Amino acid sequence: MKNKNTDFDLFVVGAGSGGVRAARLASQSGAKVGIAEKDRIGGTCVIRGCVPKKFFSYSSKFAKHNTVAKSYGWHHEETIFSWDKLIENKNKQIEKLSGIYRSNLEKAGVKIFESEANIIGSNIVRLSNGDEYYAKKILIATGAKPNFPDIKGAKYGISSDDFFELEKLPQKIIVVGGGYIALEFSSIISGLGSKCDLLYRGDKLLKGFDQDISRIITQELQSEKCNVRLNTDVIEITKNENQFEVLTSDGDRLKADLVLFATGRLANVDCINKDLKIKINFNNSVWVNKKYQTTIPSIFAVGDVSNSDHLTPVAIREAMIFARNEFEKDNGNYVIENIPTAVFSSPEIGTVGLNEDQALKKYKKIDIYTSSFRPLYYTLSDINIKTYIKLIINNKSQRLVGFHMVGDDAAEITQIISTLINKKIKKSDLDNTIPLHPSTSEEIMTMRDMVTKEI
Amino acid sequence: MKNKNTDFDLFVVGAGSGGVRAARLASQSGAKVGIAEKDRIGGTCVIRGCVPKKFFSYSSKFAKHNTVAKSYGWHHEETIFSWDKLIENKNKQIEKLSGIYRSNLEKAGVKIFESEANIIGSNIVRLSNGDEYYAKKILIATGAKPNFPDIKGAKYGISSDDFFELEKLPQKIIVVGGGYIALEFSSIISGLGSKCDLLYRGDKLLKGFDQDISRIITQELQSEKCNVRLNTDVIEITKNENQFEVLTSDGDRLKADLVLFATGRLANVDCINKDLKIKINFNNSVWVNKKYQTTIPSIFAVGDVSNSDHLTPVAIREAMIFARNEFEKDNGNYVIENIPTAVFSSPEIGTVGLNEDQALKKYKKIDIYTSSFRPLYYTLSDINIKTYIKLIINNKSQRLVGFHMVGDDAAEITQIISTLINKKIKKSDLDNTIPLHPSTSEEIMTMRDMVTKEI
Repeated sequence: MKNKNTDFDLFVVGAGSGGVRAARLASQSGAKVGIAEKDRIGGTCVIRGCVPKKFFSYSSKFAKHNTVAKSYGWHHEETIFSWDKLIENKNKQIEKLSGIYRSNLEKAGVKIFESEANIIGSNIVRLSNGDEYYAKKILIATGAKPNFPDIKGAKYGISSDDFFELEKLPQKIIVVGGGYIALEFSSIISGLGSKCDLLYRGDKLLKGFDQDISRIITQELQSEKCNVRLNTDVIEITKNENQFEVLTSDGDRLKADLVLFATGRLANVDCINKDLKIKINFNNSVWVNKKYQTTIPSIFAVGDVSNSDHLTPVAIREAMIFARNEFEKDNGNYVIENIPTAVFSSPEIGTVGLNEDQALKKYKKIDIYTSSFRPLYYTLSDINIKTYIKLIINNKSQRLVGFHMVGDDAAEITQIISTLINKKIKKSDLDNTIPLHPSTSEEIMTMRDMVTKEI
Repeated sequence: MKNKNTDFDLFVVGAGSGGVRAARLASQSGAKVGIAEKDRIGGTCVIRGCVPKKFFSYSSKFAKHNTVAKSYGWHHEETIFSWDKLIENKNKQIEKLSGIYRSNLEKAGVKIFESEANIIGSNIVRLSNGDEYYAKKILIATGAKPNFPDIKGAKYGISSDDFFELEKLPQKIIVVGGGYIALEFSSIISGLGSKCDLLYRGDKLLKGFDQDISRIITQELQSEKCNVRLNTDVIEITKNENQFEVLTSDGDRLKADLVLFATGRLANVDCINKDLKIKINFNNSVWVNKKYQTTIPSIFAVGDVSNSDHLTPVAIREAMIFARNEFEKDNGNYVIENIPTAVFSSPEIGTVGLNEDQALKKYKKIDIYTSSFRPLYYTLSDINIKTYIKLIINNKSQRLVGFHMVGDDAAEITQIISTLINKKIKKSDLDNTIPLHPSTSEEIMTMRDMVTKEI
């Protein structure tokens, strides 16, 4: 070790949402903390995930807004979309956010290393310049990276990471995948005016989501601009000059200007020296116990690298629990359950708690309330977008156990509903709430359309 | 009585939100029900309140959206706003809604009289054609009408009812008032591009709301287009050709193309024969007991005509309780408390539970959490609108007793929070909820900025 004298109480590998939070909290608790990041500070969420995606999603909705605007008296003579402008402004903002993350780390007294880092011993991290540091505890917070399918010509495809850096928006794009990233990008692409084929090998989108949500979003995505093809796998990609040709499992040959793989992300465990006996799960993620401890007691892991729920707030929550456990001796009763999730597709999806299948399995008998209506905002226009809401109630206890929504503001509403589910509220508690008129969420307080299902 | 044979179990005077709901529910329970309406079916909310106001509010926000759109790459060559188009589409939709109300009444078997109706006896209603009907019970659901101040030239002003029917949008408007209607119309007027002076005789807008909400919305309304003048009363209005001149209490003479009075609404009790001994409250509203019964046991009243909370959902809830009590013998435990309210100004306000002053008075010691941030949506643009959130927590029990918000989606979020307040959740319940990222409402789950206040 070249810098034998420089040691840390905690060395964090990866300065994304989880790593930054753990480093800051530990440092604020008096620990001496170092953090290494080989890319930009901020991680997937800030640099190439939630934040830029939300910007693209906002942008993709203006074409629809302009149509609605007409019905409210606003007429635009001519509308031009500039990809360059979007990218430029996105980059500026991401730069700014990354800077804020950096300065928060610095303010908290964390030593930042802009370098790749490898964990070469239970307490030793080696940077790419050869410097080695001794740390009492090491936290792996390296997140996940895009997963490409093992097919011929996969190298011609790009990941969502790369999409944010495209020099221009291609006119015809094939999106491969059926998860939330595939849906979000299909919505962005068609919203911004390009055509897209969404190819998914499964028979329904959004595996794990409620079946009705999956069915409704599939219908909503289908449009002149977006062609959803289920049960369709990609066999091979070939390149012809500037175009790509995708051979599908049903024998079609589709041409596109771009192929975007949204085929999952894999835990990024490159930083772990192969000789270290850290247990890796079957899906490449790092195994941890309830204290986020790997099989080497001085090495911990939080966030996407260890976790099947690839969600920023989960990584942050894990980082918080880790830092409090290890550096504050605060073993507060922090729970990670009923995680609310949004898909920022168009329309938006929000979901928390159990889906219908899960609830039926668990409670045997459930009441399902649904409502499908055209929000007031669209009623003046020709746009016939419906908002769909589903409540899943445990028949016996009459408690709300699942909430699922497709429509504007689904994310905002779902966030607050998640506290209601945590608090085990009953259907009668919703009925007893005075509606706020006119709003979308008042519909949740007046739901009467019910079916009971039982196993 | 000309039609001695035609009698009703219930005769409802006024087919607004409350009257229609009561009539339908009673009829569905088997009662023979008649309803009289002198204007269009639908009442204040549908015809000249919540619904058209929300349409105008939506329309008024597109100018801001267009500015934000630029930062997302969308450029409009030229944008033209057409008042005619807005009015035409609004009218079509209101017509449709009124038709739905009518057809729902008909489907429920309610007999509709398109006529003014006067209550001339404990059980007798007289229509304007002289027909008289005997009813076992009579429900007054005539709502409220605009209140004009008693000043010289008040006749030159219009009410918000009239604003929805203007042939064109005047360029310079004076809005008189400081309540939610005054704020909503000032936002609409300035959003649609006209200039407005908001004159209010009090020293703060939105009496009864949390002081910080009042302060923040006052700052936000102040703009090049909207001039908020507090402590300013209107003394006299004079007319000069097509312009009006308003003399203010501080001696200014302001010129405008239109004067809009948003100076409250008064219970509409014209339908009650003067000889009937029905107790009227000091503010002109009909006195009722907890069963919505007036001092004449066969005559009831719900909604704005009897109530100080002029809110559609409150009228509907009262109508429901009345109908169930009187026609279903269902005395279910329906509560009307923690009424969530929104002001559809720009920015929007949502509020439920106690404000700071009320909470301090009731609990002596409270914790106040606040957060003020620029929502992600605006970060790419030059628009520096902040969203403000305030939680009021009873210091002793740590329960949430008040929620106040200014910003986009305030109404949607407040609606769900109202169930949380009803269920007496604690601050720790919010802390224990996993945030949904990126969203505005996740801020509610991560609030740390706190002051404790005590009497």
